[in-house]
Amino acid sequence: MTINDDILAQLEHQAIEVPSWAYGNSGTRFKVFGTPGTPRNPFEKVSDAAVVNRLTRLAPTVALHIPWDMVDSFEDLRKHAEDEGIKLGTVNSNTFQDDAYKLGSLTHSDPKIRQMAIDHHLQCIDVMDATGVEDLKIWLADGTNYPGQADIRSRQDRLAESLAAIYERLGDNQRLLLEYKFFEPAFYHTDVPDWGTSFAHTLALGEKAMVVLDTGHHAPGTNIEFIVAQLLRLGKLGAFDFNSRFYADDDLIVGAADPYQLFRIMYEVIRGGALDPASPVSFVLDQCHNIEEKIPGQIRSVINVQEMTARALLVDRTALTAAQEAGDVLGANAIFTDAFYTDVRPDLAAWRESRGLPADPVAAYAESGYQEKINAERVGGTQASWGA
Amino acid sequence: MTINDDILAQLEHQAIEVPSWAYGNSGTRFKVFGTPGTPRNPFEKVSDAAVVNRLTRLAPTVALHIPWDMVDSFEDLRKHAEDEGIKLGTVNSNTFQDDAYKLGSLTHSDPKIRQMAIDHHLQCIDVMDATGVEDLKIWLADGTNYPGQADIRSRQDRLAESLAAIYERLGDNQRLLLEYKFFEPAFYHTDVPDWGTSFAHTLALGEKAMVVLDTGHHAPGTNIEFIVAQLLRLGKLGAFDFNSRFYADDDLIVGAADPYQLFRIMYEVIRGGALDPASPVSFVLDQCHNIEEKIPGQIRSVINVQEMTARALLVDRTALTAAQEAGDVLGANAIFTDAFYTDVRPDLAAWRESRGLPADPVAAYAESGYQEKINAERVGGTQASWGA
Amino acid sequence: MTINDDILAQLEHQAIEVPSWAYGNSGTRFKVFGTPGTPRNPFEKVSDAAVVNRLTRLAPTVALHIPWDMVDSFEDLRKHAEDEGIKLGTVNSNTFQDDAYKLGSLTHSDPKIRQMAIDHHLQCIDVMDATGVEDLKIWLADGTNYPGQADIRSRQDRLAESLAAIYERLGDNQRLLLEYKFFEPAFYHTDVPDWGTSFAHTLALGEKAMVVLDTGHHAPGTNIEFIVAQLLRLGKLGAFDFNSRFYADDDLIVGAADPYQLFRIMYEVIRGGALDPASPVSFVLDQCHNIEEKIPGQIRSVINVQEMTARALLVDRTALTAAQEAGDVLGANAIFTDAFYTDVRPDLAAWRESRGLPADPVAAYAESGYQEKINAERVGGTQASWGA
Amino acid sequence: MTINDDILAQLEHQAIEVPSWAYGNSGTRFKVFGTPGTPRNPFEKVSDAAVVNRLTRLAPTVALHIPWDMVDSFEDLRKHAEDEGIKLGTVNSNTFQDDAYKLGSLTHSDPKIRQMAIDHHLQCIDVMDATGVEDLKIWLADGTNYPGQADIRSRQDRLAESLAAIYERLGDNQRLLLEYKFFEPAFYHTDVPDWGTSFAHTLALGEKAMVVLDTGHHAPGTNIEFIVAQLLRLGKLGAFDFNSRFYADDDLIVGAADPYQLFRIMYEVIRGGALDPASPVSFVLDQCHNIEEKIPGQIRSVINVQEMTARALLVDRTALTAAQEAGDVLGANAIFTDAFYTDVRPDLAAWRESRGLPADPVAAYAESGYQEKINAERVGGTQASWGA
Repeated sequence: MTINDDILAQLEHQAIEVPSWAYGNSGTRFKVFGTPGTPRNPFEKVSDAAVVNRLTRLAPTVALHIPWDMVDSFEDLRKHAEDEGIKLGTVNSNTFQDDAYKLGSLTHSDPKIRQMAIDHHLQCIDVMDATGVEDLKIWLADGTNYPGQADIRSRQDRLAESLAAIYERLGDNQRLLLEYKFFEPAFYHTDVPDWGTSFAHTLALGEKAMVVLDTGHHAPGTNIEFIVAQLLRLGKLGAFDFNSRFYADDDLIVGAADPYQLFRIMYEVIRGGALDPASPVSFVLDQCHNIEEKIPGQIRSVINVQEMTARALLVDRTALTAAQEAGDVLGANAIFTDAFYTDVRPDLAAWRESRGLPADPVAAYAESGYQEKINAERVGGTQASWGA
Repeated sequence: MTINDDILAQLEHQAIEVPSWAYGNSGTRFKVFGTPGTPRNPFEKVSDAAVVNRLTRLAPTVALHIPWDMVDSFEDLRKHAEDEGIKLGTVNSNTFQDDAYKLGSLTHSDPKIRQMAIDHHLQCIDVMDATGVEDLKIWLADGTNYPGQADIRSRQDRLAESLAAIYERLGDNQRLLLEYKFFEPAFYHTDVPDWGTSFAHTLALGEKAMVVLDTGHHAPGTNIEFIVAQLLRLGKLGAFDFNSRFYADDDLIVGAADPYQLFRIMYEVIRGGALDPASPVSFVLDQCHNIEEKIPGQIRSVINVQEMTARALLVDRTALTAAQEAGDVLGANAIFTDAFYTDVRPDLAAWRESRGLPADPVAAYAESGYQEKINAERVGGTQASWGA
Repeated sequence: MTINDDILAQLEHQAIEVPSWAYGNSGTRFKVFGTPGTPRNPFEKVSDAAVVNRLTRLAPTVALHIPWDMVDSFEDLRKHAEDEGIKLGTVNSNTFQDDAYKLGSLTHSDPKIRQMAIDHHLQCIDVMDATGVEDLKIWLADGTNYPGQADIRSRQDRLAESLAAIYERLGDNQRLLLEYKFFEPAFYHTDVPDWGTSFAHTLALGEKAMVVLDTGHHAPGTNIEFIVAQLLRLGKLGAFDFNSRFYADDDLIVGAADPYQLFRIMYEVIRGGALDPASPVSFVLDQCHNIEEKIPGQIRSVINVQEMTARALLVDRTALTAAQEAGDVLGANAIFTDAFYTDVRPDLAAWRESRGLPADPVAAYAESGYQEKINAERVGGTQASWGA
Repeated sequence: MTINDDILAQLEHQAIEVPSWAYGNSGTRFKVFGTPGTPRNPFEKVSDAAVVNRLTRLAPTVALHIPWDMVDSFEDLRKHAEDEGIKLGTVNSNTFQDDAYKLGSLTHSDPKIRQMAIDHHLQCIDVMDATGVEDLKIWLADGTNYPGQADIRSRQDRLAESLAAIYERLGDNQRLLLEYKFFEPAFYHTDVPDWGTSFAHTLALGEKAMVVLDTGHHAPGTNIEFIVAQLLRLGKLGAFDFNSRFYADDDLIVGAADPYQLFRIMYEVIRGGALDPASPVSFVLDQCHNIEEKIPGQIRSVINVQEMTARALLVDRTALTAAQEAGDVLGANAIFTDAFYTDVRPDLAAWRESRGLPADPVAAYAESGYQEKINAERVGGTQASWGA
């Protein structure tokens, strides 16, 4: 099995958005470790993101997080990105760090706090207008820690109203993407805990509302590729947030924990047409590089997605369908795993070189001197982080 | 806190359907233990179910499972039930025990097998017509054990078609209830694994299709009361299958594993209006008494639901709402748990007596001599079981 | 069933140590919310802890965390505690916040960093010597995030060596308590992930080394009361860290998530003799009050433990043993749950009053004016927190 | 990276025992599907096992299960195995299918039932004596379904006594292997639920007692390779039961669910010296082929283990250690995953051919006509199964 031209043509336009916050410091509630060279502002984050794209041609856009990435002039930030060869991407809202949001934001029982959270999203849409970005991604930390603390049902009703107010403000080409998450930071109930909830709300909102599937946001044992297939079937999969996990929302490098799961997800992506450039599904990383180097961590991540996509494209779907319809359980499984076990790395390295890219982007980064340069230059100031 | 007349009025009409198969033998893949007195046919199962109702006035109907409960004359079975003081309830289909269904039923790639499964459901509706039963409950074992074994997406499409064919046949007052289950007996993917899938299909089918929530069919850690609240909000909760679990679909006595969870579920039931006699939500047990006595196990189960409903009705909702809106986390939680920790058993025992029921139905059963009678009478023949 | 004098006698000496850090701010990686009145130093934390004890007579000691609770004079801190009517308790080490520990502490491949971590523990023993504290509690954050990142086996060998060096330094009446944790902050492997590992290490160290069981540190579905019974049987249970959880190490108020589980744990505590004042087992809270009030949260916690202990003491063990030996599954379970469902709160309230304590310590705290006082006084300075 | 002679030398003696019961029918509590050609007796099972070995030279022994594999003459069965080119292997006891064991076996409160279970194990040792088998594997289904049903602590004490009585009977070269399992068929507590319990008991018994690690018997999220490393370090890992799982004890083909996990396990096997022919660790399959063909399922399984062992042997341990000690998180992980992602299948196929084996044993089986032969011959009689 080899990577042929047809497969390369499908890989040609693959794009994986990187998150600006991956270049800043992150950690756990126990400790956030700092590292030399960490950006101090959104411009430096964009520069780092651009390095990933230059070495891989896989990451043409960088997601923003408001207010972490607030700047005086988004025009300047957009121009800076374009100068670096990339574009600004999805705008992510944040309703979990203001003291007002301690007990909720879009679901809060106090209409003033709800309005404050709605207004924040309208401000995010302003940023989208200013930057030409089309996607607003909403991940809500809303939830409760103790049974009885709040009324689960009323919060759903208020959520629906708040989302409708935000949806109303969207421009013609803009989308509202609603992310779900099993738990954390809320520990008893979460207001958007599963795809069903996100689906129900986006269905009620309308066609410009779609679901975000973060691969780390599920209960233990959840079959994620099933959800991918289902949401694609229902026409409601808007975006992926890629990362990997062993336990909870570990936010590790995508593919690092269970590469076979990533393969199965990418197979359903392809099966469902979401690799097609015309597909509305966007692919975004959402990871934390708590202890490993950040830029190489991002390079490794986009390559992992590319390699696993290539493996999934290797599946002989004609033979697979025949085995499936013949009820040949072992045969069908073998066709599927043959693709997974095929080592696509040499072919992809050669292809990269043919496109003027380094065969090994991680090694190329190490040799580039970029890290040493930013370590030396980025002295003083406050390193970017979540600011928890 | 005491059980007042208002609460008693709400408890007055509570009904929990018992499953005919709970009176037969059940077990694990390792062993099915038999017990003396186990019914040999549907008539004996109905008689046992009637005992539960006579002692508790909580279980006026008994669910049937086809083909386990096939009889020559459903008219006779209906009459037998009525003679015993109960009625026949939900008809449950079975598409997991015929050899043809080894790789699927309503989702199978072979149209002949799909039609066979559809026809089975039409036969179930015939039974409903013959017995006056209004609910058809579909739990599908369909799924796969190995990645690649089948095409997840196509199976969804075929499932939608098959369900539509069944739905089409429903009478005006009949409902199709679609149950979801996280895993088992399929170990890689399940075709209706979560409430979102069941919701999406029943939404597509129409108003007579609703979701069944089995309390043992979720991923570890799932907040079930959230799903209750959400499905009630969406108007799509059709029925509960009650049981409890520590690990997987353990099918233990409802309330036995985590009584506080049952309390929270019953609170959302009340909060969402589903205890109202006019509510479309039905409450059914789906349990296995693998090692404990069956009839007392069922009595304990319906009493557990009754007692927990009483506790949930004790919640001072006015005070709770005030604490919630004041953001008093500990206060709201305390109001909630005060109700849970209140011992409602003496009040309920007294109420039972006032209604001509035994104060302690489990003890009354032990003293009734019924078990000794069936032990002596039910000799010979084949004890009812799942026949796996 | 009522709380008789025999039960009260057993409750008389119950002691639950509170953690100094519960009075400071805590949160998640997303946000640490501050609250008025939060202590700025260990003296203020001790004062708050003393309030809990004054209102409940349940919390005579307060655990320290080094370096969070480093003071110039531990003699002064000890005296301050005694003036407030309590004593200093378990000394907890911290090897997860120094930059040196990014990739490990007692298990690190670099002997200098291991020595630094060992030295920190020797310093903790110095604090124990200075304060008369007998227990050193070691919870290690050590672990890795990525497969291959470190050699799992070598880390165990180094851990054994490091622990031996610390153990060597213990005084005659001092103990080393080794805590295990399933995951977090490490996401791939944790060096002390389960009770077996903690047991194996403390067995190798000797009699002064024992295991700490934190009720929030297990895999989903783990039967914690089994581990309690097993460790008591093996003579290696040194201490509890109490809290509760729905998902991961949520650190919620003990008993708040699954009160029946707490009941079962306390039953095994009693069954195994650990409630006996002569038992070596100590009971400590380890919780985070991220969104609720801290002092009332602690009061609620120690009362929850007391109430659940009372319920567990109500189990009619003679009748239970008889039912168990008769193989009466439902009967034995009913005897067990009868105790759980009994409302002990009125009896305990009366008992509190008879001892000169408030019947409702949470209400008494609210009326005491203490919170208003510290809100007013504790202005300026830096509120205590984990400092992550 | 290629499979060199040194690696081939290590693979040369790899042996994976197959279980006799894998050739019989198995299923779930919902259904056991039969298949043509299924053995009717232990001799036919041994013949099928021998086919796996002839095609792979990986499965020189077949494990027995008593009483499923009871025969009139074990001398005849041994001779039959030798005639087929294999040997009889581990003897597995069964204390979960006799009615007497409904509430326990070695842990039962009734000394008569305990003695019955002990006697069964002595009988198993008789079989070992008669067949020259050295390993007795004990997996206990013992446990309870309801809190309070039995006394957890007493059951541990009785378990220790029962095991000691069995251990006493072992010959000089015989071993007692104690398997642990998280849950199933017991749903509340299991008497040997985790490696710590198995370790504590085998430690108390003596050197001839060791732990069995079944890869499907852990809580969700458990890091199994850590347990492998730990048990090897403690000198107490006696055997593996290989299979794979997505949810519970699914007993799927080893490597089918999470191949990367199998890679990590085999890496720790090698790291800990357990691939050395002198190692006491034995490798056994314990799987259920509920829906797939049995003999090809077993062939696929032993090849999966072989291929993953080869991948794990490819890890450049010198480079890995250097990266680990340098704290190069990404570099170490990359060295580790490079080995996993290398496609070893062509090299192994060539090696097989060089040894007179088929390059593709699954295909060779399909072409061999063996299945058609047994389908035709094995007509009538009762197909072997668990007989649940």
